[in-house]
Amino acid sequence: MANSIVELSTFLHRRGCTTLVEQATAAALEGACGSPASYAEIGRRADLAVVLGGDGSMLNAARHLAEHGVPLVGINQGRLGFMTDISRQDMLRRIDDLLEGRYRPERRSLMLARILRDGACVFQTPALNDVVVSKGEVGRMIEFELRIDDEFVYNQRSDGLIVSTPTGSTAYALSANGPILHPAVAGIAIVPLCPHTLSARPVTICDDSVIEITLAHPHEARVRGDGQTHFDLRPGDCVRVSRAPGALVLLHPPGYSYFAMLREKLRWSEAPSNQ
Amino acid sequence: MANSIVELSTFLHRRGCTTLVEQATAAALEGACGSPASYAEIGRRADLAVVLGGDGSMLNAARHLAEHGVPLVGINQGRLGFMTDISRQDMLRRIDDLLEGRYRPERRSLMLARILRDGACVFQTPALNDVVVSKGEVGRMIEFELRIDDEFVYNQRSDGLIVSTPTGSTAYALSANGPILHPAVAGIAIVPLCPHTLSARPVTICDDSVIEITLAHPHEARVRGDGQTHFDLRPGDCVRVSRAPGALVLLHPPGYSYFAMLREKLRWSEAPSNQ
Amino acid sequence: MANSIVELSTFLHRRGCTTLVEQATAAALEGACGSPASYAEIGRRADLAVVLGGDGSMLNAARHLAEHGVPLVGINQGRLGFMTDISRQDMLRRIDDLLEGRYRPERRSLMLARILRDGACVFQTPALNDVVVSKGEVGRMIEFELRIDDEFVYNQRSDGLIVSTPTGSTAYALSANGPILHPAVAGIAIVPLCPHTLSARPVTICDDSVIEITLAHPHEARVRGDGQTHFDLRPGDCVRVSRAPGALVLLHPPGYSYFAMLREKLRWSEAPSNQ
Amino acid sequence: MANSIVELSTFLHRRGCTTLVEQATAAALEGACGSPASYAEIGRRADLAVVLGGDGSMLNAARHLAEHGVPLVGINQGRLGFMTDISRQDMLRRIDDLLEGRYRPERRSLMLARILRDGACVFQTPALNDVVVSKGEVGRMIEFELRIDDEFVYNQRSDGLIVSTPTGSTAYALSANGPILHPAVAGIAIVPLCPHTLSARPVTICDDSVIEITLAHPHEARVRGDGQTHFDLRPGDCVRVSRAPGALVLLHPPGYSYFAMLREKLRWSEAPSNQ
Repeated sequence: MANSIVELSTFLHRRGCTTLVEQATAAALEGACGSPASYAEIGRRADLAVVLGGDGSMLNAARHLAEHGVPLVGINQGRLGFMTDISRQDMLRRIDDLLEGRYRPERRSLMLARILRDGACVFQTPALNDVVVSKGEVGRMIEFELRIDDEFVYNQRSDGLIVSTPTGSTAYALSANGPILHPAVAGIAIVPLCPHTLSARPVTICDDSVIEITLAHPHEARVRGDGQTHFDLRPGDCVRVSRAPGALVLLHPPGYSYFAMLREKLRWSEAPSNQ
Repeated sequence: MANSIVELSTFLHRRGCTTLVEQATAAALEGACGSPASYAEIGRRADLAVVLGGDGSMLNAARHLAEHGVPLVGINQGRLGFMTDISRQDMLRRIDDLLEGRYRPERRSLMLARILRDGACVFQTPALNDVVVSKGEVGRMIEFELRIDDEFVYNQRSDGLIVSTPTGSTAYALSANGPILHPAVAGIAIVPLCPHTLSARPVTICDDSVIEITLAHPHEARVRGDGQTHFDLRPGDCVRVSRAPGALVLLHPPGYSYFAMLREKLRWSEAPSNQ
Repeated sequence: MANSIVELSTFLHRRGCTTLVEQATAAALEGACGSPASYAEIGRRADLAVVLGGDGSMLNAARHLAEHGVPLVGINQGRLGFMTDISRQDMLRRIDDLLEGRYRPERRSLMLARILRDGACVFQTPALNDVVVSKGEVGRMIEFELRIDDEFVYNQRSDGLIVSTPTGSTAYALSANGPILHPAVAGIAIVPLCPHTLSARPVTICDDSVIEITLAHPHEARVRGDGQTHFDLRPGDCVRVSRAPGALVLLHPPGYSYFAMLREKLRWSEAPSNQ
Repeated sequence: MANSIVELSTFLHRRGCTTLVEQATAAALEGACGSPASYAEIGRRADLAVVLGGDGSMLNAARHLAEHGVPLVGINQGRLGFMTDISRQDMLRRIDDLLEGRYRPERRSLMLARILRDGACVFQTPALNDVVVSKGEVGRMIEFELRIDDEFVYNQRSDGLIVSTPTGSTAYALSANGPILHPAVAGIAIVPLCPHTLSARPVTICDDSVIEITLAHPHEARVRGDGQTHFDLRPGDCVRVSRAPGALVLLHPPGYSYFAMLREKLRWSEAPSNQ
């Protein structure tokens, strides 16, 4: 990866761009290129954030940068990801496309999860993919109440609940039989994990809804944001999920197609070989 | 039903309202009440359309009246329906609520399906619930190409495809394992019927998309609107589905809850008796 | 195909075998090879039936020959099928394997469906894959009662019901979300088609059970055996499905693997390309 | 429960039966009735084991007693369970039925899971419902290889894998979308938990198969038997599951119906209220 960063950095300098390197990455590189900067500084100063890595790196950068409105583009070292559209070998050509204005921007909503305990917020995390409340270390099923916009929806016994954006709908939620939502749909999918009732089905609601998951006594659970942040819940804790202010802007190179990505990454709807 | 119409008509007259009765219904009633009128005339003149019947009657009235912008309310003779919120015994009290302004309006999108053959439109139908392309009389699986906003999505072999609004997402599409979409979500679900590939999954797209289903040779199929209108397709025919102009406005009485309706009508997420 | 039959026939003669050719096929070939024979005669005289064709040809041959106990082997002209293990180019080598005793026999149960009307059997068909009761030409959902071993199971409204052997569990039943049953499991899967209740799930029962599907008034439906035979049902008709006497014996060449077939034919459990 | 035990014990004494009380229970009751005995002693001496409690108590007793061949019957204090057919209020009448020979015995297979590490068995547990290999405390997805009867089946990334008997098919496996298997089917269902591939589906195999799940490096996981026993797996560990010798015999009172139990306990295939 160091090579890629140096190569990209050199290229950008030649194009007259100033580059900042996220400080932890810069430290790992031992100052080989660019000025080290915190996410906050990158957020304030950068016009474009280029992420070299996989979808996990994109999720991490997105949670740090979304509130600053810096557009993101992802370059994948290995195989392409759901959000990393540019392959390592096409890097310079595609970045050139972006600098010349040849790209399509796409807005992606983030969610903000806040944990309320005795009326106070004891933890919060943004999430680009999903907020997952699930059984914690003990590994037993949990029981909780779901409310949406202050209306009772259901009590559920299950392994947990996934609250997913359209971006997250092709990630963990999909493995739990959640719906695929195109990023242009302003919806949030609520997907049970191994629910203890045959009539449970995911429901997709408007993304300006407020979702509250309150853990029943004596259940303990864990809440995760994008599978990267987590907090342990006590009985009675409430996880309140709402749309985060602002939005992430992804820049797609020319030729990007959401449905092609579904087919390639998920083999979605691909016919078996005998057809 | 005749009794209900007479009772409602009398009540409305006392409240100073003029009533029109859909002409086929009026003929069946032999002129017992109100002035007979075509759907078109009702559409032009009425401030409110009251449907006495089940969801099927609502679908039918909605397809006729949606373009005119007349709000609808449904009164159910038997059990409540997905769209008929008012029970027969509460009829007068609830209509009184509406006349006094105690209601919540809700917009529901309709779709328009047009059949294109050799470049010409040979049939069209609006649909509030769903447009279904499926195997016709022959009863064999069909093969077709799906395009969305002129982009190739997939070729599929299956029993057919359901294109469903949020309103239709709790109807036929749900029985084919489609996603439940809250009416406030501006989405359209595309749900395969018994697809011949394990990796097929429904996808939900933005409701301003244009969906094109082109039947492969030599397959024949049938297209249906809301299960109430139909047209037989020939090989090569294209079914183009887009959002219909305007929208249906449903009036809900005080206390209406979408999630409560899901629980009552579908036993959605209801816990088994041993919990 | 004519070439393949001639080539195979010549090869078998050299090996000292007598060959019979199914009479309709023989007529199409205009007597180029072998003695024409009815399925019944083949059933009585043959030690091995070689089917050149796809799974559809195998299903057809199986329904005709299973009662006679003649083992079957399938040779596929194009791509391999679920039951046709031998490719055209390996034909002679694989038939040689069989003649030398290098094969693995596998028993597959068939079902027998009988239509009872007013106490009399008005139609019957064997089935190797499935017996499907589904909406007929009218194309509306149907309603029926299911009984197993004379015990009430449920009343259902749906598009229909699939009764499937393990052999059929990777065919139509799978597209309706039915379970995959290994051929060694002595079970029958009962799989609803688009059921009108969220809590419907397929159930797998012992294959010596007797299954009765009685059509409610005023519903009409069609019953199909392996998608190749059919009969139109009237309201009140009962479809009684039980295991057929005897069993089909398939001969598999060395190296055959059921799980490999699932992976190749269905892309079953195949990891997406990003893994 | 103490009251129930005393009442049952008194009743059995009057009928001339000798009663043993499981020793931990006896200790809790402080000697109120019957002779304390270990499970092993109960296994050797008893003609019938009566379990007062829910399905969890049945699972526990079954794992201890199955190898001894003592038939079990369950009495449920609260609502009936999947395996506890007799309600508290019917207790004496139903036990009288059993003593008079009015019952239907049903055999249920158990599985035995052995954990192999460097060739040695480091843990083993029987299971009546299921053997579950799933992500442990760390809570990340796991990766493993599945082999059946020494044949490669697939590599999978998922939250885990459920190996379930027909008895367990209405328990945890069902919440993970596994198939319902009637107890008379000699099958084992293999059900992925949130698999990372759209084409994953459960498969049901013959219950005399040997199933091996080998954890890939560097993954850690936990294996559970019936959700009641557990062991932490290291990378490379193999979980080998096979049918346990012997079988559990359940005694059902007159009138017991498996399908009625499915309908009552799971609301299986129950029509919504509008039908």
